[in-house]
Amino acid sequence: MNIDEFVERSLGKWRSQRSAHHLAFHHFEEVTSQIEILPLEYDDERVIALCKANQVDAHLVSSPFYMTWAGESDWDEDEVLAGSTVLVPVPDLEKPTQGRLLREQGYAETVPAIGQYQLIEDGSFVLKTQYERATAEEKIWFATPNLRFRVSLIKTGDGKGVTTASFSSEIRSLNLEE
Amino acid sequence: MNIDEFVERSLGKWRSQRSAHHLAFHHFEEVTSQIEILPLEYDDERVIALCKANQVDAHLVSSPFYMTWAGESDWDEDEVLAGSTVLVPVPDLEKPTQGRLLREQGYAETVPAIGQYQLIEDGSFVLKTQYERATAEEKIWFATPNLRFRVSLIKTGDGKGVTTASFSSEIRSLNLEE
Repeated sequence: MNIDEFVERSLGKWRSQRSAHHLAFHHFEEVTSQIEILPLEYDDERVIALCKANQVDAHLVSSPFYMTWAGESDWDEDEVLAGSTVLVPVPDLEKPTQGRLLREQGYAETVPAIGQYQLIEDGSFVLKTQYERATAEEKIWFATPNLRFRVSLIKTGDGKGVTTASFSSEIRSLNLEE
Repeated sequence: MNIDEFVERSLGKWRSQRSAHHLAFHHFEEVTSQIEILPLEYDDERVIALCKANQVDAHLVSSPFYMTWAGESDWDEDEVLAGSTVLVPVPDLEKPTQGRLLREQGYAETVPAIGQYQLIEDGSFVLKTQYERATAEEKIWFATPNLRFRVSLIKTGDGKGVTTASFSSEIRSLNLEE
């Protein structure tokens, strides 16, 4: 599996169930959300701008995409968790199964981020992102073409402890009205 | 990692947070439990009996162990989910990173079961068990010596669809009174 195939399989609308375990407090959090993943053109100005901001040659980009999400947490049912971000994979020239993932907005902190991804033997996509005060580690894999899973760990800045572990089941929305 | 190291790292008391996603209904279930994993002697009568019942030569066994659990689900707070089982790994002679796992009592159905395990490159323990009407797939890995994660999938009998996906965070109980 290369990054183009992985992005291709991820395109579309997904209905997500996410459970977060806040480990220090043994707390559970449940989030249900709608996710949409759309392909972007290579010459899309958001892709070009993100490459420029990261001093990356735009010719090295593979399968840039755009992701939107809107969800609800059981911690605060009135709050709507919604957002969108541009994601730009930049495979390594020597080893195309790994590379950098440029993001407008990160997962653990709402600032731009560069993650390191790797597609491993079992078909999983593994992403590590270092933020100022935390490290995020994500693993995404497909159980079937219409079901994917995601494990996300938020680690302490030194990468040794895990503060939050979460698990998402993402089911493709085949109903076009959803 | 071989099965002896994996069992060795797993011994002790664990506090588990488990979230189950019942996919067809988009339902969440939360279970908190205490797990204890204890080593068994090779000549323990429960080990010998399980080998006999499965027509396995008891000399092929590696690191047999005993597991107990007691938990509570948010679906029915009065019900106590408790049980125990004997687990007996039988590594393959040609390829010792994989083998059979004999169990007194299975996960998806409360009948004896034989699973196929494999220790994969990233250090995860992967177990597949075929039951009469379902297939269970489990993956367990350590984030730190005192934190392990487990993803369990219950699949339809033909192995194609997933009915339940669950994720557990298991933290070692260092407090002896717990």
